Amino acid sequence: MNHSLCSSTNPISLQELAQHIEATIQGSAEILISGLSHLEGASPGDLSFVLKPKFHEAARHSQAAAFLTTQPIPDDPRPQLITPHPLLAMATLAQNFFLPPLPQRGIHPTAVTGQDVRIGPNVSIGPLVTIGDRAEIGSGVTIYAGVHIGEDTVIGDDCILYPHVSLLSNCTLGHRVILQSGTVIGSDGFGYAQDEGRHHKIPQLGNVIIEDDVELGANVTVDRATFGSTIIKQGTKIDNQVQIAHNVVIGEHCVVVAQVGIAGSTRLGHHVMIGGQAGLVDHLKIGDQVRIASGAGVTNHVQSGQTVGGRPAVDHVIWRKAQVLQYQLPELRNELRALRKEVADLKRRLQERS
Amino acid sequence: MNHSLCSSTNPISLQELAQHIEATIQGSAEILISGLSHLEGASPGDLSFVLKPKFHEAARHSQAAAFLTTQPIPDDPRPQLITPHPLLAMATLAQNFFLPPLPQRGIHPTAVTGQDVRIGPNVSIGPLVTIGDRAEIGSGVTIYAGVHIGEDTVIGDDCILYPHVSLLSNCTLGHRVILQSGTVIGSDGFGYAQDEGRHHKIPQLGNVIIEDDVELGANVTVDRATFGSTIIKQGTKIDNQVQIAHNVVIGEHCVVVAQVGIAGSTRLGHHVMIGGQAGLVDHLKIGDQVRIASGAGVTNHVQSGQTVGGRPAVDHVIWRKAQVLQYQLPELRNELRALRKEVADLKRRLQERS
Amino acid sequence: MNHSLCSSTNPISLQELAQHIEATIQGSAEILISGLSHLEGASPGDLSFVLKPKFHEAARHSQAAAFLTTQPIPDDPRPQLITPHPLLAMATLAQNFFLPPLPQRGIHPTAVTGQDVRIGPNVSIGPLVTIGDRAEIGSGVTIYAGVHIGEDTVIGDDCILYPHVSLLSNCTLGHRVILQSGTVIGSDGFGYAQDEGRHHKIPQLGNVIIEDDVELGANVTVDRATFGSTIIKQGTKIDNQVQIAHNVVIGEHCVVVAQVGIAGSTRLGHHVMIGGQAGLVDHLKIGDQVRIASGAGVTNHVQSGQTVGGRPAVDHVIWRKAQVLQYQLPELRNELRALRKEVADLKRRLQERS
Repeated sequence: MNHSLCSSTNPISLQELAQHIEATIQGSAEILISGLSHLEGASPGDLSFVLKPKFHEAARHSQAAAFLTTQPIPDDPRPQLITPHPLLAMATLAQNFFLPPLPQRGIHPTAVTGQDVRIGPNVSIGPLVTIGDRAEIGSGVTIYAGVHIGEDTVIGDDCILYPHVSLLSNCTLGHRVILQSGTVIGSDGFGYAQDEGRHHKIPQLGNVIIEDDVELGANVTVDRATFGSTIIKQGTKIDNQVQIAHNVVIGEHCVVVAQVGIAGSTRLGHHVMIGGQAGLVDHLKIGDQVRIASGAGVTNHVQSGQTVGGRPAVDHVIWRKAQVLQYQLPELRNELRALRKEVADLKRRLQERS
Repeated sequence: MNHSLCSSTNPISLQELAQHIEATIQGSAEILISGLSHLEGASPGDLSFVLKPKFHEAARHSQAAAFLTTQPIPDDPRPQLITPHPLLAMATLAQNFFLPPLPQRGIHPTAVTGQDVRIGPNVSIGPLVTIGDRAEIGSGVTIYAGVHIGEDTVIGDDCILYPHVSLLSNCTLGHRVILQSGTVIGSDGFGYAQDEGRHHKIPQLGNVIIEDDVELGANVTVDRATFGSTIIKQGTKIDNQVQIAHNVVIGEHCVVVAQVGIAGSTRLGHHVMIGGQAGLVDHLKIGDQVRIASGAGVTNHVQSGQTVGGRPAVDHVIWRKAQVLQYQLPELRNELRALRKEVADLKRRLQERS
Repeated sequence: MNHSLCSSTNPISLQELAQHIEATIQGSAEILISGLSHLEGASPGDLSFVLKPKFHEAARHSQAAAFLTTQPIPDDPRPQLITPHPLLAMATLAQNFFLPPLPQRGIHPTAVTGQDVRIGPNVSIGPLVTIGDRAEIGSGVTIYAGVHIGEDTVIGDDCILYPHVSLLSNCTLGHRVILQSGTVIGSDGFGYAQDEGRHHKIPQLGNVIIEDDVELGANVTVDRATFGSTIIKQGTKIDNQVQIAHNVVIGEHCVVVAQVGIAGSTRLGHHVMIGGQAGLVDHLKIGDQVRIASGAGVTNHVQSGQTVGGRPAVDHVIWRKAQVLQYQLPELRNELRALRKEVADLKRRLQERS
């Protein structure tokens, strides 16, 4: 099986790729590259990448035609592009030369658009897309089949919305936002006023604002604010099946891994990283550059720069020690029992002598 | 930025709002209110709310035109509506005066309806909705773009189904049910008969019944029963990304927070509250008014009135103590070690004397 | 209420059912069976099943017309089919005689198909389905309303795709694959190259391969590989809201319960079972026939045949002991304190005598 799925584009000379990422070339740059791949799955026309010297052996066994690497691979005659950050170089080359083409530009005749909709140039609006009244769509936007865009919603330039996204009314996307399939933006927040054993819905009258360069994975949910806005700031990346409740604010350049839940009105600073399946209760303040371990349950504010883990989440040093010791509890209990016997014995002996 | 997104409706006199919620007016009720908001984000035409006296200071700094409050805010000349339950009053006023208008009534020409479908008066069926044969839709129902309704499914009056809901065949919704986007009702339960290392699908022949005034959040999944019905009883509110397995029964007026999972055939009483990310194994009986902490893993039946937490879930008093102590394990271990040394020392000394 | 929802098909003689599963008949096989049900909800025309002798009492109170049972129910005159595996027999009979009919064959006129699409015989393609260029669809496939199939995607024979599935470009389904509603196959994996505080998207150029007889529940997400393929091997069954990251490989005949998350490049052997809400970090190797308890957090490789639980996951014997002892921590602490006092007392007494 050919794993090099990006090889449909035209081959490009290694020279041209090297220039684009300002890499030093070792060996001949004359060859043509037809795709990118990891070492293991590379085909003979592929460029692959070596993140660390420990992968030199794997590189030697790879079928790749050339490598991106931090330092030359010894005893390998194939051409190598030397670059301090091979992964970033890969990302750059993939973005510029090896992406599958975007869908055809234009508006599919089966798309249903409301009244007073404004659509910029160079867009692709796929089949069976629905767009509500007064929505605005920027230039270069790609909207795949079956997406719904609500009334009065604004989409910036060069966004990509994958099939079956629900981007509901009154919300705003910045530029270059990517929403993967099945994601819901602007569902009602979970708010009820309790009275005599009944839960009365508090209408959710706010919206969602998503800034530039944010990406949301598949089947993510972001609730609209009760009043005001739920906000995801620029550059933040959010993985699949994350739940973001009403009035949450997520700062710039955060990374939130799959299946995390963030409860209402909690605010995150910038560059926060949250591991998968962690949960944050409502109304917390999480500082800048905080790291939250996967599976953590955060129930208190966290200061900038801290790393926390566990349920409830505490400083990671404390958490890690406790994590290890939980499994030594049977031994601790046994030691305690043994010690209790010894003390009883000592006591008896002391008694006997008095 | 104007956070008062509900101001599109016509302004209403404070007098009229006060009458509707039977509030006592302090100050002039002549002014017009154009929207509702929280204290922080209020615009000059907004009515805001003060849940507790500790928010009086925030109220003084708010730009709101008037307040809903339990007791008068001292030293503030603005008009105030005194009411014992400001949050409920807000919900009531929002529902009655400040909701964005429902979509236009009628059936969009691109909706696809099957044979023998019955549709009540005053409905709104949006573009690209699909409705299976013999489905019945009550009066006043709103079905947004792209919703799918399966064969033989029955929807009561005044329900709202947001874009991309999948309400599959043979299921039943009561009146005033709200389903947020991406939610799936009636997917097959997860049932297989194991035989010689293979998993043979057990057809899921039952359905889902959702009673009056239930709301389900976005991307929720509710599986149909193997036989019989998966049931969510009246008044229950369920947050985003909750998973409800086949043959589960959820009692009246429960609250289930985001990302909870409830396994097959587990039954909940009424007024149960479940915190986010909790999990309940299959075939449990959870009594009435039980409270389950967020992140709990419930593996045993829970009696009415109990509050439980932890993994595995136990009475919350026991759980909270253990939660705190887990992080003192290193100290306990160190104390134990120190004590062991002391005991050894005592023993030696006692030995020396004998 | 009649729970026997499968009774719409024509009644079948017990004789014919018995022959199909090679069961021994006790009593008269002349009667007609109109549906299947569990004991509790059975109607007078139903066949029900008795998994163990402890359910004999419940069987006697059931209204079922006949039973599938491992051993005869004493003192019950109704006909019984004796079979070593009643659940498997139920599954077989349901599949063959009592399934609701599949949707009408043919392609709905509102379906939108791209260029060079190949569609096999005997398919049902529902309303408002979108199919990308060059997709291939095998024979007997059922695609419900609103499904999206991407470009170059291949679907084997007899697959069933429920409403609102997003099966994105370049992916492959084997034969008899079932995808429940809202499930997304082929969303981009979560991969970024960090540089100076920014996250640069690594294009996800691979695909997803799903082999024969796999079933995925509702709102599942399966990311495409960065390069190569994310693979789910034959016979594996995956419950609702499971998240499978890029380059994961799941072996044959695994069972993955709801809300599990499996991070990038982790590989599972065959017959692995994972309980609900468990999480597996990236790049793990999980052997064959491994069992992972619900809620576990797996952070290390697991050898074939092992059963693990807890966060972090460890051997289940160690985990279960620690699980119980966590709640005895207050007693252990108190015992330790008492012991410390006793030791101090002993020390003092010993001191006094010297």
